[in-house]
Amino acid sequence: MAYQALNEATILEYVKTRPALASILPPTARITAREVGDGNLNTVYILQNADDPGQGLVIKQALPYLRVLGEGWVLTRERIRYETESLRLYNQYAPGLAPAIYDYDDEMSLLAMEYLRDHLIMRKALVERQRLPHFADHISTFIANTLFFTSDLYLTGLEKKTLQARFINPHLCKIQEDFVFTNPLMESPENRWNPLVDDEVQRVRTNGALKIAAAEMKASYMTHGQALIHSDLHTGSIMLNASDTRVIDSEFAFYGPMGFDVGALLENLILNALSHYGHTDDPAVRADYQDYLLEMVRDVWHGFATKFDALWVANNQGELAPPQYWNWPGGDQAFAEFRQRYILGILRDSAGHGGCKMLRRMMGVVSVWDISSIVDTTQRAIAERKAIRIGARWLLERNSITTVDDLIAMVRAEMARGNQQ
Amino acid sequence: MAYQALNEATILEYVKTRPALASILPPTARITAREVGDGNLNTVYILQNADDPGQGLVIKQALPYLRVLGEGWVLTRERIRYETESLRLYNQYAPGLAPAIYDYDDEMSLLAMEYLRDHLIMRKALVERQRLPHFADHISTFIANTLFFTSDLYLTGLEKKTLQARFINPHLCKIQEDFVFTNPLMESPENRWNPLVDDEVQRVRTNGALKIAAAEMKASYMTHGQALIHSDLHTGSIMLNASDTRVIDSEFAFYGPMGFDVGALLENLILNALSHYGHTDDPAVRADYQDYLLEMVRDVWHGFATKFDALWVANNQGELAPPQYWNWPGGDQAFAEFRQRYILGILRDSAGHGGCKMLRRMMGVVSVWDISSIVDTTQRAIAERKAIRIGARWLLERNSITTVDDLIAMVRAEMARGNQQ
Repeated sequence: MAYQALNEATILEYVKTRPALASILPPTARITAREVGDGNLNTVYILQNADDPGQGLVIKQALPYLRVLGEGWVLTRERIRYETESLRLYNQYAPGLAPAIYDYDDEMSLLAMEYLRDHLIMRKALVERQRLPHFADHISTFIANTLFFTSDLYLTGLEKKTLQARFINPHLCKIQEDFVFTNPLMESPENRWNPLVDDEVQRVRTNGALKIAAAEMKASYMTHGQALIHSDLHTGSIMLNASDTRVIDSEFAFYGPMGFDVGALLENLILNALSHYGHTDDPAVRADYQDYLLEMVRDVWHGFATKFDALWVANNQGELAPPQYWNWPGGDQAFAEFRQRYILGILRDSAGHGGCKMLRRMMGVVSVWDISSIVDTTQRAIAERKAIRIGARWLLERNSITTVDDLIAMVRAEMARGNQQ
Repeated sequence: MAYQALNEATILEYVKTRPALASILPPTARITAREVGDGNLNTVYILQNADDPGQGLVIKQALPYLRVLGEGWVLTRERIRYETESLRLYNQYAPGLAPAIYDYDDEMSLLAMEYLRDHLIMRKALVERQRLPHFADHISTFIANTLFFTSDLYLTGLEKKTLQARFINPHLCKIQEDFVFTNPLMESPENRWNPLVDDEVQRVRTNGALKIAAAEMKASYMTHGQALIHSDLHTGSIMLNASDTRVIDSEFAFYGPMGFDVGALLENLILNALSHYGHTDDPAVRADYQDYLLEMVRDVWHGFATKFDALWVANNQGELAPPQYWNWPGGDQAFAEFRQRYILGILRDSAGHGGCKMLRRMMGVVSVWDISSIVDTTQRAIAERKAIRIGARWLLERNSITTVDDLIAMVRAEMARGNQQ
């Protein structure tokens, strides 16, 4: 079928033509369709059996092009292939932690996947101050598995480079390159920030050491093909409930630095923790949930580090440093030290990337709903000012940290500070 | 023409069918052909006009496969495409420093290029203790230009990633990955070393810190897509005479760390300097040429660093950190500091990669003719022992060096040491 953008009517005919979908939504069923995407990048439809709403699926179709910000970015429809192939790899390497994939239609740039009817976007759950007892365990498994199994630690050089070639994703990379690392830190017409924190914003934009550090993190993003990263792993790309966690929206996937994914997670938890300066007036309620989130940061990191290390020990079949390379008395210890240094490198990268991403959310075109939804700009400024200072410290001090507690201590120090300075 | 391996007879017919070659070797001329390659990877023919030997060209044809060391490596013929495309880029970005390309036949895996009749393989010139007054200037231009103009400092993200995709070169990468970084440092049946330096060799293979460092350099080689590197830039890949310098044999080209190319150059100059312990009994002659080569190391590095920095200032049109990113009072200084840190990073990478390559030449399957041609094993051991110690120090101390003089000082310290320990 030649490409055409579907709508709520034509999609009903389309699904009946797809054999792979017949077992999910029987062609004889009365099917309803509603568009739920934001319409900027893709259209997203939920299709359900009107007589049995438990039967459903989600269809995501890429629009033929997109002009972002009038600067003429043309996004090829191929991004839906990146998303499909990465989701398939997630299902392979981290089963149960991404939606099931039912169908993919290359010509139509269309992906059919599991309808997560009982799941909420994580960002919303955090603003509601929900407790998520399995999240840290689930997401640390997700990042440990997807990063390890796509890296040179597990794949042969040929396998890894073949996979890397399928994920050369320049158009979507450019969005992150410009809007995470560069434009927010300089004058650029699309930037937006709260005038009440203008002093902090200008300090960042004229801080030489910080600008150098951000450029170094951008170089890492542009050149360090360490693993197949999701590359947009914020809490809006996670759907969950009390017992289940799924990672979605992986169209930015490419071979990049592992710390970009880990950093995105940690950073989004911190920004949410700060958002509660604006979401509750009760200091005890706020402190309690902030403590909970900082504990979650610790758990996510430790879960990741522990699982990643265990995967490596159990599956050292890549070509980077095979078992026989460590085969001498003392070799076990050296291998353990190599792993420790490697994982510390990921933590430091996470701090650098997470710091850049904290800054861009406060002063670039992409804000973060947790904080931008705070209506009172004075209240909002409390969170924003602290976020900028924490982001700057994570970035600038990344290479002197040794544990995740160092990063948490920077958050605590900023929280302990008065709210008006 | 469907692929067939040519020979000295059939190649004469072949060249007459190629219009692009008619102006180099007129089809009516009496052409002679002789095979000059080593026959392992490719066949290489020199074709000349018997009546005017100044008219000539070189034809290189990839063999359909190669089994290296009985381990079943199949090298696709595509490597001749990597070589052709990289040589074309060299001609574009560093004109006059690579052979001219006359013709490329994809189906035949065949490349026709300039015959460098008056040039010598550099390694041979160095063993003869020739003076090469323009080499440091030429080669520093070559590496500065080819690395800068293929990096994110000059190309847009889209341009760079598109080029990177054309140079995913897993089979040839694997050769370097295994035989530079891994196998020489562990027990592997193909390794060869002088029994007289067995103590040093075993010390390296059981030195935990060194093994970790080498694994980190291998990770850099496997993941750091910084620029289109030659990836085999030793003094056997350079042909020159007193006035002219050309880089050849770029079939290993891929997007890797700049320091791998720079390190290969510096390392080969050091190994040659050490080789003269076996090539002359006259300490004054030896010391004089060693001084000359250490000065050359300094000149190559400083030439590179100066030219690379100047190119960056004059052509900062990539997307890593554009001019407007540095646009505030103090921004010029920050940009200068960023460049300085970036170039220092290349120097440290050069030390790490150069150190690994020094070690592999002493204890892996690929020796270095400068030293392996020393017949007296006791004489040879003097050079080998020093090379191992210098390589180990370059590798282990790479992150504490700040100038090329630090690397030269390690060489001098080893030279000042007695020859029997």
